[in-house]
Amino acid sequence: MSDEARRPNTSDDETALPVVTMHRPRWGDPTTPAELPAAAAALAGSDAVADPGVDPAAVVLARPSVPDALHAALRGLLGAANVSAEHRDRIEHTRGYSTTDLLALRGGDGGDAPDLVVTPGSHDEVVRLLALCAEHRVAVVPFTGGTSVVGGLTPQRADVVGVVSVDLRRLDRLVAVDEISRTVTLQAGLRGVRAEELLRAKGFTLGHFPQSYAGAGIGGYAATRSAGQSSAGYGRFDEMVEHLVLATPRGTMELGTAPRSAAGPDLRQLVLGSEGAFGIITEVTVRIHPAPACRLFEGWRFDDFDAGAAALRRLAQDGPMPTVLRLSDEVETAINLADPDELGAAAGGCLAVVGHEGVAAEVDRRRDATAEVLHAAGGRCVGPGPGEAWRTGRFRAPYLRDPLLDAGVLVETLETVTYWSRLTEVKGAVTAAVTAALTAMDTEPLVMCHVSHVYAAGASLYFTVVCPQARNPIDQWAAAKTAANTAIRASGASITHHHGVGRDHRDAYHDEIGDLALEALRAVKQTLDPDGICNPGILL
Amino acid sequence: MSDEARRPNTSDDETALPVVTMHRPRWGDPTTPAELPAAAAALAGSDAVADPGVDPAAVVLARPSVPDALHAALRGLLGAANVSAEHRDRIEHTRGYSTTDLLALRGGDGGDAPDLVVTPGSHDEVVRLLALCAEHRVAVVPFTGGTSVVGGLTPQRADVVGVVSVDLRRLDRLVAVDEISRTVTLQAGLRGVRAEELLRAKGFTLGHFPQSYAGAGIGGYAATRSAGQSSAGYGRFDEMVEHLVLATPRGTMELGTAPRSAAGPDLRQLVLGSEGAFGIITEVTVRIHPAPACRLFEGWRFDDFDAGAAALRRLAQDGPMPTVLRLSDEVETAINLADPDELGAAAGGCLAVVGHEGVAAEVDRRRDATAEVLHAAGGRCVGPGPGEAWRTGRFRAPYLRDPLLDAGVLVETLETVTYWSRLTEVKGAVTAAVTAALTAMDTEPLVMCHVSHVYAAGASLYFTVVCPQARNPIDQWAAAKTAANTAIRASGASITHHHGVGRDHRDAYHDEIGDLALEALRAVKQTLDPDGICNPGILL
Repeated sequence: MSDEARRPNTSDDETALPVVTMHRPRWGDPTTPAELPAAAAALAGSDAVADPGVDPAAVVLARPSVPDALHAALRGLLGAANVSAEHRDRIEHTRGYSTTDLLALRGGDGGDAPDLVVTPGSHDEVVRLLALCAEHRVAVVPFTGGTSVVGGLTPQRADVVGVVSVDLRRLDRLVAVDEISRTVTLQAGLRGVRAEELLRAKGFTLGHFPQSYAGAGIGGYAATRSAGQSSAGYGRFDEMVEHLVLATPRGTMELGTAPRSAAGPDLRQLVLGSEGAFGIITEVTVRIHPAPACRLFEGWRFDDFDAGAAALRRLAQDGPMPTVLRLSDEVETAINLADPDELGAAAGGCLAVVGHEGVAAEVDRRRDATAEVLHAAGGRCVGPGPGEAWRTGRFRAPYLRDPLLDAGVLVETLETVTYWSRLTEVKGAVTAAVTAALTAMDTEPLVMCHVSHVYAAGASLYFTVVCPQARNPIDQWAAAKTAANTAIRASGASITHHHGVGRDHRDAYHDEIGDLALEALRAVKQTLDPDGICNPGILL
Repeated sequence: MSDEARRPNTSDDETALPVVTMHRPRWGDPTTPAELPAAAAALAGSDAVADPGVDPAAVVLARPSVPDALHAALRGLLGAANVSAEHRDRIEHTRGYSTTDLLALRGGDGGDAPDLVVTPGSHDEVVRLLALCAEHRVAVVPFTGGTSVVGGLTPQRADVVGVVSVDLRRLDRLVAVDEISRTVTLQAGLRGVRAEELLRAKGFTLGHFPQSYAGAGIGGYAATRSAGQSSAGYGRFDEMVEHLVLATPRGTMELGTAPRSAAGPDLRQLVLGSEGAFGIITEVTVRIHPAPACRLFEGWRFDDFDAGAAALRRLAQDGPMPTVLRLSDEVETAINLADPDELGAAAGGCLAVVGHEGVAAEVDRRRDATAEVLHAAGGRCVGPGPGEAWRTGRFRAPYLRDPLLDAGVLVETLETVTYWSRLTEVKGAVTAAVTAALTAMDTEPLVMCHVSHVYAAGASLYFTVVCPQARNPIDQWAAAKTAANTAIRASGASITHHHGVGRDHRDAYHDEIGDLALEALRAVKQTLDPDGICNPGILL
């Protein structure tokens, strides 16, 4: 392997991005230009008129419905500066970043805004504010990065008198590093970018880079079972968690005594993925890794998706496992790599991105061993160009959605996970269902798909759907999404690989786990949150 | 690496042992001689008189206390041949294989015998028998191999009118293999040895070899979070489970849709480790691996335990990970390897066993890469002798306990797991506590310890305690065990790494998870088992 392909991993990499202040409804750093590439602009059609929607400052919000006594008690507990009913704060905590969420706020709909936004400064304050809100039957929504794309920040108001958004941004400390055990204890309000920056200064990495990296926070990673783009190498977030602290209306639960144990059910795995329904995660202890000195990202070309998937499966089952391993299908390969220079003579087929990080010798060894497997599986290496192009652009995709929506293009993603033996069938079923649903509305879509995460027994499928907006794009997407969910469940796959359940997947989730399991979860919720104020309507 | 050290893994290995019919209270195949080695016999002292205890056939059992109506209903459901109140069947399902269990039966105490032993033939029959037992408030104990060493087969009778042992031995099918996804679906009553035999015939291995391998079954592996001796390479049982089916008094729960998912809490991890308290696991789908063509087991010597532990940590954190990785402390090394030929000139210090399995090239590669790390960490390779000696003798240890007890020697094991940064402290605290407790009874013990399982963040500690029996050896061990549990919890470690909770660890377990988590688990139990008949007093 030449030294040109393997590169030093410097501190100015995207792993040390600045912490971005996002402003709803648009994604990311507002000073970063998000111009539509030519290929994407073409999708909008020539008659599209840019329409950025209603100015968020002009969105009318309902009067806060939190009882005065609670408002006063929260000010007393947290200090007046940490309890806000300001329009701007409420707007910034309204819904998440699904396309439907963006469309609603663009359309001037502020109906899901919280009544208050509070910023507690300690775990104990979170416990006490939960008890206060329970007393007044006011719902609480935990908020770290606010990047949910499944309605995870939009509780039901049916059985509560108001909604308080609990923004954990003051719980932003790296509490301790155990260099021997290679773990770090982080407060939940710490943003992922900042956590990485703090760890790099000590020579470590969390290795967790979801596409929401610019915005997301540690508590959200834990509460939603986040999976980063480097999960092949560093693991999913739910696999990294050694210990967690949960604040509930009934007090504190601390879980995790050892890396693995036979002491009963693994209760960490009951709280991970609970999406605020059992309380608020305030602190986690997670595994860390030495910051990688070097990296090597390459593109590999396969004749078709099935050939590429078979090659990925070989690596996932028999190793070696790269740090990053992804495979775009034919449609996504053609769209994303429209620039023929990037594929050289190897255009067409399906592109895989294979990335290795670590010390130089290990990167070289793994690269060579991986190449042997991929060659044997019919792959052709097309060099570091497409690998580095993906790597440097990987956090840019969410920025494209805003100008596409401006231009009248509907764009959204959805995802699932299944076993290898069903992968092709599930991919076909979901693509067909979404295509049929949107075509029936005279808005035939382009459906792209990639495998973003691999496991020994199966892999995730991540779909990007692009089509012209119908008159009511929210209803339009709802129909497509319902079709996708039905196809996913009918083919035996899981309703979500890493987006979570929220409100959008709730019914399909209940179908997935069954009545008895649902009852068991409700019994846990009833124990920890007897007044039902913890993110009501989310998950359960 | 010479071809002499690497060996073909043939089908006559211990991985294809015959299925053993065990007869309480003695362990294992009764036709296998279990003579005391000279070193062990010396521990018994010269004045020891062999006393095998009361003949189990002569142990007096209470009249079965199951209501006639239930007895008749079970015969109607399962057939008369599958419902037994015979003395022999009841004795064979009495307690497990802890030293205390053995001492009780040797002493003629049949007080924990179940009233009936039933052998259902299908999942549906298990569901229906659970409903029948709930109706009559009769406890059910799931039974696969019956090898619990923590009282997991000894439910409390306080709130029930009788106890039925549900032996799953007729649920013994390999249901299906998915060769693409590399998973197998197994019924819970299948014995581990037989599962391995069936998988080897198809070219696969489960790779799960706990020390209880001669007796244990699939359902027990799942219900107690079993960890096999090759877990470094093949994973713990709780990590292998993709899907499981749980029969409860309220019906069936099927969990696991995909390898990993963000669809809420991972409920598989709520049932794994539930030890029969929520119902009876009847089927699991678990990951499998190609049967290894070759193996290479070697001994490595380190100056002391801390040096060896640091070397194991290097492998667990930075790789490569061997298939088997263990480290005996100075005492265990000296006792187990009293034969100086086995260590050659490298006697003394601590011995690690490092084993690799797989295809030849991979075994060689991993062996060489591992050797580099171990050398750098101060290890000296002492060749395949001690590695193969451990491998071929690894299922023999439980056989030694019976002749030691015959000879008046008390021998028992206990285990824990903690983070690397606390390993030495925990080991010291437990050793000191057990030594002090037994010395105070004038029975100074020999306490040996080894690391049997390693993880990125920590490792298990497995202690073997040997001392002369006091007048009442059950009380004697109870005092030592209480001291050990207190030391384990005081040092922040988990009360069990792989033995489970059962009744023996219940109080310490509750201390470990805390009141709120305990309430949550009780709420789950109340939902699935409202009459409290599922293994009452076990775990919860």
